[in-house]
Amino acid sequence: MKYCTACAAPLERRVPEGDDRVRHVCPACGTIHYQNPKIVTGTIPIHEDRVLLCRRAIEPRRGLWTAPAGFMENAETVQEGALRETREEANARVRIDALHAVYNLPHISQVYLLFRATLLDLDFSPGRESLEVRLFDEREIPWDALAFPVVIEALKAYFEDLRRGHFRLHMGDIERLPGPGRRYRIVHTVP
Amino acid sequence: MKYCTACAAPLERRVPEGDDRVRHVCPACGTIHYQNPKIVTGTIPIHEDRVLLCRRAIEPRRGLWTAPAGFMENAETVQEGALRETREEANARVRIDALHAVYNLPHISQVYLLFRATLLDLDFSPGRESLEVRLFDEREIPWDALAFPVVIEALKAYFEDLRRGHFRLHMGDIERLPGPGRRYRIVHTVP
Repeated sequence: MKYCTACAAPLERRVPEGDDRVRHVCPACGTIHYQNPKIVTGTIPIHEDRVLLCRRAIEPRRGLWTAPAGFMENAETVQEGALRETREEANARVRIDALHAVYNLPHISQVYLLFRATLLDLDFSPGRESLEVRLFDEREIPWDALAFPVVIEALKAYFEDLRRGHFRLHMGDIERLPGPGRRYRIVHTVP
Repeated sequence: MKYCTACAAPLERRVPEGDDRVRHVCPACGTIHYQNPKIVTGTIPIHEDRVLLCRRAIEPRRGLWTAPAGFMENAETVQEGALRETREEANARVRIDALHAVYNLPHISQVYLLFRATLLDLDFSPGRESLEVRLFDEREIPWDALAFPVVIEALKAYFEDLRRGHFRLHMGDIERLPGPGRRYRIVHTVP
């Protein structure tokens, strides 16, 4: 972020009066350009204890499997966004059953809100951001070919709940570990 | 949003290729400036069935009562944001007990995440954005002087849970009704 969206002047990075963190501030018109975390919203679509996953046709993590999810848009609800992403990525229609998980990804300033959902029919197919869409039972899940740690955690939590016969809300922080490679840890927090 | 933050060229409003909604797009450098909903995070701080509220020292709704809450910042978790806002607005230290409510406010592209929390001590006082901070039991709540519909709904839900002796997650959409005045309705959704 280099220039002011209101007046095109070059921005400064400084702590505004009465604030306690560095912001992009316009010295010409005074606009403060706040930057805030984004919500990623999506579903775990279920049909008879099997989960619908999408193989990604786009970067990052092209070719790997994920749950249908994406950035929430302005003027929609989290649930509307989850239904939209499920339709866009898997051409699938679902009924939302409950909030399944809230995961913080502070290293990339994202919050995932994922819903358990029931497939209304089996007429699904790859959307333009997917190569392939299919149902997996627990033994079939491609654990080593899942696109993101947040998807691994959400699916582990779902199948644990399924075995226990009791579904609950899961919350946690997914933190990137320092050093090379894609190493993460999850810290489970109070739901 | 008039100018590109990357190159200062005047922005166009159009649907980017492969997208389906109008975005601010830079015709000079190609940057697409997405705008997404913001998370408001906060707590319902509890001490012996009484709730801590803050009387607002700032606009909007100066002089009215609210729960400590505010915009989530980059690089923090929702829970860290809730603790920070509680400290900033009420100089109060709490332990987070559970997620109390998720409310969509699509007309202003906000999502509220509010946590039930227990006050760790009674050494609270107004922060710089508050005129007054105090504990209220249910009969004392200033229902007609609450700042926002989302606070009314969150407190109603809390006291209902308290009477039932069972706390659960509340979800809903708070929609502004057309016409003059501050009229809203809440649509309760599946938790």
